[in-house]
Parts: sequence; structure tokens; C-alpha cells
Amino acid sequence: MSKIEIIPLGGIGEFGMNCMGIRYGGEMIVVDAGMGFPEETPFGVDISIPNFDFLEEYRDDLTAIILTHGHEDHIGALPYILKKFNVPVYSSRFTLALCERRLEEYDMLDDVLMHRVEAGDRVSVGGFDIEFIHASHSLVECFSLAIHTPAGTLIHTGDYKIDDTPVIGKPYDLKMLQRIGDEGVLALLCDSTNATVAGRTPSEQAVIPAFEEIFEESEGRLFVSTFSSSMHRLQIVFDVAHEFGRRVCVLGRSMQRNVEIASDHGLLKIPRGCMATLGESRALDDDEICYLVTGSQGEMRAALWGLATGTYKGLEISKGDTVVLSARIIPGNEKNISRLIGHLYKRGANIIEEKRRLVHVSGHASQEDIKIMVETAQPKFVVPIHGEYRMLFRQKEFIKNHVAGYADEDIILIENGEVLELDEYGARIIEKHDLYKTFIDEESLEEIEYDIIRERKKLAYGGMISLVVTVDRKKHTLVGEPQITLNGVAGLDMTNGFAAAARSAVAEAIDEMKPAQIADRSVFKENLRIHLKRYVQKELSGKPVIVTTVVEV
Amino acid sequence: MSKIEIIPLGGIGEFGMNCMGIRYGGEMIVVDAGMGFPEETPFGVDISIPNFDFLEEYRDDLTAIILTHGHEDHIGALPYILKKFNVPVYSSRFTLALCERRLEEYDMLDDVLMHRVEAGDRVSVGGFDIEFIHASHSLVECFSLAIHTPAGTLIHTGDYKIDDTPVIGKPYDLKMLQRIGDEGVLALLCDSTNATVAGRTPSEQAVIPAFEEIFEESEGRLFVSTFSSSMHRLQIVFDVAHEFGRRVCVLGRSMQRNVEIASDHGLLKIPRGCMATLGESRALDDDEICYLVTGSQGEMRAALWGLATGTYKGLEISKGDTVVLSARIIPGNEKNISRLIGHLYKRGANIIEEKRRLVHVSGHASQEDIKIMVETAQPKFVVPIHGEYRMLFRQKEFIKNHVAGYADEDIILIENGEVLELDEYGARIIEKHDLYKTFIDEESLEEIEYDIIRERKKLAYGGMISLVVTVDRKKHTLVGEPQITLNGVAGLDMTNGFAAAARSAVAEAIDEMKPAQIADRSVFKENLRIHLKRYVQKELSGKPVIVTTVVEV
Repeated sequence: MSKIEIIPLGGIGEFGMNCMGIRYGGEMIVVDAGMGFPEETPFGVDISIPNFDFLEEYRDDLTAIILTHGHEDHIGALPYILKKFNVPVYSSRFTLALCERRLEEYDMLDDVLMHRVEAGDRVSVGGFDIEFIHASHSLVECFSLAIHTPAGTLIHTGDYKIDDTPVIGKPYDLKMLQRIGDEGVLALLCDSTNATVAGRTPSEQAVIPAFEEIFEESEGRLFVSTFSSSMHRLQIVFDVAHEFGRRVCVLGRSMQRNVEIASDHGLLKIPRGCMATLGESRALDDDEICYLVTGSQGEMRAALWGLATGTYKGLEISKGDTVVLSARIIPGNEKNISRLIGHLYKRGANIIEEKRRLVHVSGHASQEDIKIMVETAQPKFVVPIHGEYRMLFRQKEFIKNHVAGYADEDIILIENGEVLELDEYGARIIEKHDLYKTFIDEESLEEIEYDIIRERKKLAYGGMISLVVTVDRKKHTLVGEPQITLNGVAGLDMTNGFAAAARSAVAEAIDEMKPAQIADRSVFKENLRIHLKRYVQKELSGKPVIVTTVVEV
Repeated sequence: MSKIEIIPLGGIGEFGMNCMGIRYGGEMIVVDAGMGFPEETPFGVDISIPNFDFLEEYRDDLTAIILTHGHEDHIGALPYILKKFNVPVYSSRFTLALCERRLEEYDMLDDVLMHRVEAGDRVSVGGFDIEFIHASHSLVECFSLAIHTPAGTLIHTGDYKIDDTPVIGKPYDLKMLQRIGDEGVLALLCDSTNATVAGRTPSEQAVIPAFEEIFEESEGRLFVSTFSSSMHRLQIVFDVAHEFGRRVCVLGRSMQRNVEIASDHGLLKIPRGCMATLGESRALDDDEICYLVTGSQGEMRAALWGLATGTYKGLEISKGDTVVLSARIIPGNEKNISRLIGHLYKRGANIIEEKRRLVHVSGHASQEDIKIMVETAQPKFVVPIHGEYRMLFRQKEFIKNHVAGYADEDIILIENGEVLELDEYGARIIEKHDLYKTFIDEESLEEIEYDIIRERKKLAYGGMISLVVTVDRKKHTLVGEPQITLNGVAGLDMTNGFAAAARSAVAEAIDEMKPAQIADRSVFKENLRIHLKRYVQKELSGKPVIVTTVVEV
């Protein structure tokens, strides 16, 4: 009997970029195709995606992409994987609607086959038999997956929390999970995002009292910023605004798009007459309007940043306004958020943060939710996914110490690029591939090779020296003086004689070369580079990139 | 009667780089000269300092530098300010000892005049009459300053907490502060670092129980990482280690240096026979040794990173070891710390973080400490200092709402580069200078101009195209083909014809120029750059830096 292979392409040991290959008997599906948010933003990239070239090896096996839900870190890389592997996509109506918008932007919509599935469905997908379990999360129409194979059943939780009272839709379908668990589960691939947090994650409804208080107290305008995908939160804002006689004006492209899609699908229920355009909002009194805006992470391109810095067209935040930051801080965004808050305070706004009042709850399972998940699914093995290594580790530690029947060897820590082989007899890592992430050019949205980023990093670190040398085509001797141009080079300036001295040093080096050494232009160029590099190392502390050009006359 | 001017050069609206000019009647002192930790590390700089060139305007007035305490963000820029303004330095014995080490590294020690002062002293310093108030903080021998002028008294808190039971030394000298407050204080310049935190900051002693538990429980080796300047914490580790029969081995340059200085001065009391060298430590059983190490912020050059990644010479962390992270996370370091923790978990270490057990307390005043400070000093005005804008604002908000007698106009928010004029009649901002920070080259430790960093940022963002064109010196016509070299340019490679097409485009542009346009080389060069830029903008999405060189033959 065959074995199952689990091959994470992203999302293990990092936040975001969730993507996992699952392979059995010559067929392979990919669960999620998410984007990440790399630290390399100074280098002209703000998005990373998994290295899909790695899947080339499995091209013949790859039969489908399954999306658990519509967050960017699960669907954001979909256009890029589909460009390389145009296989059918399976997901919920709402997730597919979000994907359609994205594929439209890439002008790819007509080429992609999308299959809509519903919670409770059992579908034969690319050689696998998959059940779609309704999962509660901060978004709607999310799935956990039960992937059945002759070698056993895998459960992939997707992102989830065990929410007994979500604002939109039903609680997590523990009954279905229990039934599948009772039938036997080989492995549970389980979200670790909140595995360091004790207790249960509060229900999405838990923020309602704080919002009611804030709407009750506030006399000025209200600005609520949250993730544009946090559907339960958006519903609460619409409901509470309506209750307190405020209309809602939605600002920011992704927020407007998501509100439109969700209300088109009847997921978001917007009270009649509650929506206001920006124009209408300006005619309202301060206590009659609530703005729902993007930018809770301090993103400089989002609405809230513009409103805070006076660069949003037609509206700005001013004294007496209240700004509610109804989101958690995604690691890495601390400084930008702090800067945003500084700007808001300077404008005289009142700011309500998560830390001070319960205006945000997580969408991810805390430790006690994880316990419920494991006890219900009853897997033989647990494989922590989605999170930095410390979170994966802490999930392991928690299950080992707090869920009966799980020992060290039952909880398996893997990394991106590893191939985990599973069958009823055990689990073992059989291969390890080095997977570099792929970056996306900020402007063209095209893939950009890692080598390019590496070159940019070198330029950034030490600047650049351009050396141009002219040689006689036949005599192989130096003509005129070498020319040197500096860019971003520290410790000198063009007036302090460095360039003149470096020119002489290069000229001397050439004088000492034999014509044969100059005749081979590529050897000559490299020799020049090495000579100048040695000279520079003596004179400067930095390590500028040296670019040499040889002109023949 | 003259007015007092307060001119912050750093530390307002940012974390670190604390520095403030105080001026009265043609005399000026500078309080603290701290370094900062900029985000520009990809550009070859890891330290920033205030722009001291700004003080040039006050050269004749500047008479002394007063250092409140020995943290890097208060003394780290001392060599740079002294290079430009060699005035006497006043501080405590221990702070001066730390400065001496630093000045030695810069080979400046012999040129600097240092005056040792003690808590309780009243000294005439450069035209000002200054009292040094003993302040409790995470470090030892710290001061708050009472700066007396005929126009009134300023109190500069330095960094402080109201610690009634410090581990080393005495509690904050509230009695002296009270006496000065009773005599009348015009303005209190008050640390805001923890102004968002409710309640009192726990005493330095508060971590002792957790440390005792950890030493009690642990059977393997112990690694404690903390700031090398946290003297109370170091004392606790030595004491508890001794109590539980472990010897202490100190790893990391700054930790070794600080332990040496502090024990030389009798501030740190190391139990006899407690210290162990690295060599000795290896001969001890696992439960007989505790390593005290640098690197709690995930710094890649520090000891803990090396121990976690197997790159520290002669020692590595392994299964069964316990690592105590006895420090807070400085904003901006989250990702590095998370990476460090991942490495430690992978090695099988047990990790104890601040979040899970009380192994760290802050050295800064929380809201109730601030209340004690304000009520004791009884200033007419409060000026929040040390912190990002949100912290300054939150201090203002707290005092306004929770300390009797302070209204909005009594608490004055200022920014770096502003000149705040103060007298008994009021406080007003009379000037605002744009202060760019100065960066320090990572290797040479020399100042690096902001323009260089700006050039590097451009290179980083879009890469670089080098264009070399050869022209006939007399005929002003193109000779041969233009040459193009790319570095870090995205969206193309040298094989896809871009370079060839760009060469043709440049050649065509030159063909269309008149000889006179080519004859003026600088005009010609700039024209070439613009032509190539236009061509590149059509073909590529990025914005590479274009460097042109013209060769004459």
C-alpha cells in the first residue's frame, strides 16, 4: 500500500505564505497558495510567494488546488501558481469570489476552472476523496479539510477557532469532525498561530460590548480600522452603528471590495440606508457617521495613514475624532503602527487600541481550542502548521503536556521543503529541499529572482564604484585615464582625492600587466575588479560593488 | 530677566538617541548624548546619533555635557559630540567609568576632561547650578538633575523608576526631590518610556522568586540573557547562582566589560569563587554552571545567537539546557528574537520568557510612578521626554486626568529640533529646526552623511544600470557601440535583448544630437541619462539608478 507525502512549500517556520502539497499514489493536491510579507521591502518587493518551481518535479501528479479560506496568506499567490500549473481550484463560494477579483486583476479569470463546494460536501478531487468541514474563523465560509486516502485520513484544519457563537454563520462543525475522528484519522495538520496563548479564544461576539460603549460615549466622528477580511467585525460595526444612529462610510479599496462581495452574497447584512458615500458622509453631523477604514497595520498606502497625515483626498482626521484600532499587530509592523498612532495623536484624535479595550479577538485557536480539536479529531499524529517555529514548538509542547495519549513521537515538527512520509506504521522525513522564497516586484507584480534581490542587498550595503578603462584594440595598452564614478560609497567624497588615487592605482596595475593578460577581455575585466577591490579595501571600510567596463578603441 | 531654552536634539518622538540642550543667559549645557538604533541596517549602518552640527550655532555658549546615567541611548554618542565640541563631562563615577572604556576605543580618552559628581552634590556647571538627585533605575549610579537658573529650576528626570527596594544602592531620593519641589520648580522634563503602563513599576527585587524557582527546578545548564547594563539583574543572578551552588560564567564582550567595571567599583558583589572561565565551566556538571550572556534582543553578533546557532567558539546550547530571556523586547527586534527562539527550540532547549514568568521588570516609571514624580516635584510645567510620540501623549493624558492641578496647557509636547522657551509667565515654542539624524558606518565607526544613505536606498530599491559611451574627442561623434551593465535590475536579463535594444536606443539618440550638444560633456552626460531613463521606464517597471560615463578618444 502506498504512503502519503506531505510537502510544505510555505507557512512552516514563518508567518504567512501558507501552502502545502499532499501526495498519494501518483496524485498530488495543493492546499492553499498564500502570499507572505517579507522584510525585503527596501529592495522594491512587498510580497513573497512560495517557490512554485519546486513543484515542477510533480507536474504530472498535480491535479487540483484546494483553498481553505480567503485570507491573503492563503490565496494571495493563486495567480502565480496557476500561471505555472493551470489545475482546477476548489473552494467555497465566498473564497472563490475573492479569488475571482484577484484573477481579474491579473487578467487570468477566463483561463481558470473553479469548483464551488459547500461545507458538508464530500467530493472526489484529483484522486483524493475530500470532505469539507465548516470552520469558524475571523472570515466566513472557511473549511477544515478531511482528506481521505487508502493509506489513511488527513485533517488539515486551515485557520480556525472553536467559536460557539460566531456573528455570521454557524459554530465550528465539531459533530462532523467527531464523526470523521471516530472513523479514524492518521494525521492532523493543525494551525499553530495562537499556540502560545493559554485558554480559549473568545468568540467573535466578545467585542460587541466594547463597541457599544464606544458608540455610546463618542460625540465626534468615529473611525474603525480593521482587516478588510474580518467579516464578523464588519457586521458588528454595521449593526452597532445602525443601533446608535450612525451611517457607515467604507474607505479603502480592499475594504470596499470585500464589503461589496460579502453583501452581494448575503453574508454581510447591511441595514437599509446605513451605507453612506464619502460625499454624503461630509454632510452628516459628527455623531451621525462612522468610517470603516483599511490600514490598521500602519500601511502607508492604506486609507487610515492618509487620513492621519492629511494626504487622503477629501477627508482628514481632526480633533474630537475617535479612532478604533480593531486588529492585532502583525509582527514586523510595530514601528509603522506606532508612527501611525503618533500622527493620530498629533491631530488630536482619541485612540482606542486593543490593549486598552476589548475591540479585537483573534481568529485563531488558543491552547484550549487546540485541545478540543485534537480530542475530537483523535489523530494518530499531529503535525503543527501555520506559524513561526516557536509556535509550532509550543503547540507540540502543549499537546504533549495537556492532551492525554500524545507522546513526543506523535507530534511531528516539519519545515518548509521537507517531505514527510506517513502511513499507519509511522511518520518520517524522507527528503529535505532548500526552498528560497520568490519575491514579487512591487510595481509590475511579476516574479523577481532571488539573485536580483541579492545584488540589490550588496548595492544597499556598500554602494557602488563604476570603473571604466579604455584600451587600444590592437596594442592592448591603456588609452587615456581610467574613469571612476561613486554612488553611495562612504568614507570619502569625490573631492578628497580618492578617485584620483584610485585611477592611478588602476593605471599602475595595468602598466604591470602583460599584453596577453589584457588581450583576454574577460580575464582583464576581472583582474581590474580585483585590483580596484584590493585598493578600496585598504582605503575604505565598506564593501562597495565594483562594476568594470572595458572600452576598446 | 532672561528665559530658559530647551532644545531636544533626540529622544523625543523616537526610542533612543536621548540628547537635550538647555540654554540660559548665553550659556548652554547638553544633557545626555545617546545613540539610537535605526531601521537603516540594510544600508551598512547600525547606529544613529543626533545631528550635532546643529549645535554649531551655539558653539560659544556650550560649556558642559551632563550624563544622567550610563545606558547607550544616553552616552553612546559621547565620542561624536566631543570630537566636535570638546567640553567637560559631568557624571557619576560608574557612568564615567563606562564612558572611559568607550573613549578608549575611539582613542580619545586623553583629550577629555571628566568631572565626577555624587548624588546629593550641588555643583556649578558651565553657568548653571546643578543638583544631582539619586535616581533608581535598572542601572546603578543614575541621576535626576535639578538645574537652577535665575529664571527658575528645571528638573530632568533622566531614566528612572520609583524603586523602594532596589537590589543595589538606595531607593529614589524622594526627600531631596521634595525639598527642591518645595523650593519651586518651573518645569519637569519627565521620562515617558512606560507612560502607557498602568500602576507602579515593580521593584528590581520582584524577579528574585522566579529566578529562585528556575534555579531550583533546573537540572541542566542554565543560560541567562539580559542587558549587560542591568546591574540589579546581574547581582540577582550571581546571588541566586551562589545560593544554588552554581558558578557563573560571563559571555559576551559588553557583559564581561560591565561586570568587570561594576565589580571593580564595588557595585556588583560577586561571591568568592563564584566566577568561572569558559574553560572551567566545561569541567563542571550541568547543574553546577550558569552562563550569563549577551544577546537577549536576538542580535546576531552577540553570544546567545552564536550559542543557539552553533557558531560560538567552544560552547553551544543543546538538549536539556534552560535559557532565561530576562529582558523586554525592544520594538523593532521582534522578528530577530522570534528567530533566535526558533533556533533555541530546535536545539531542544527549554526557554523561559518574560511573558510566561516574572523574569524581567522594567527600569522605567509607570503611570503611578509618574504621579509620584509630578506630585513630589510640583512643577509649573511638565514636558514629557524619552519616547515615541504616543508615549509622550499618553503621559500628558495621564497627568491631565490623574494628577490634581494640571490642565492641558501645563503639559507641553515638544519635538526634536524645536526650541521651547520657558519662564515664569509661560512656555512657548519659538523655533523649529529640521534635524536629520546622523548615521555611523558599521565598520569604520565614522559619521556617514545622509546623502550617502539616500543613494544606497535608491540603489537598493531599483538596482543600477551603468552606461558607457565613447565619443570622438574632436568630431563629437559616437565611436563604437554604447556599453550597458546591469546590477540588481528586475524584469529582464542580459540575454533577453534588453541591453541590445537599449544600446540601439542610446545610439539613435546620439545620432540625432548636434555636435554642439555632445561637445559640452556634462550636458551630454545628463542627456544620455535622461534618454536611457525614458527608454527604461517604457521597458521596465522599476526605477534603476543610471550611471553614465563618457569616454573620449
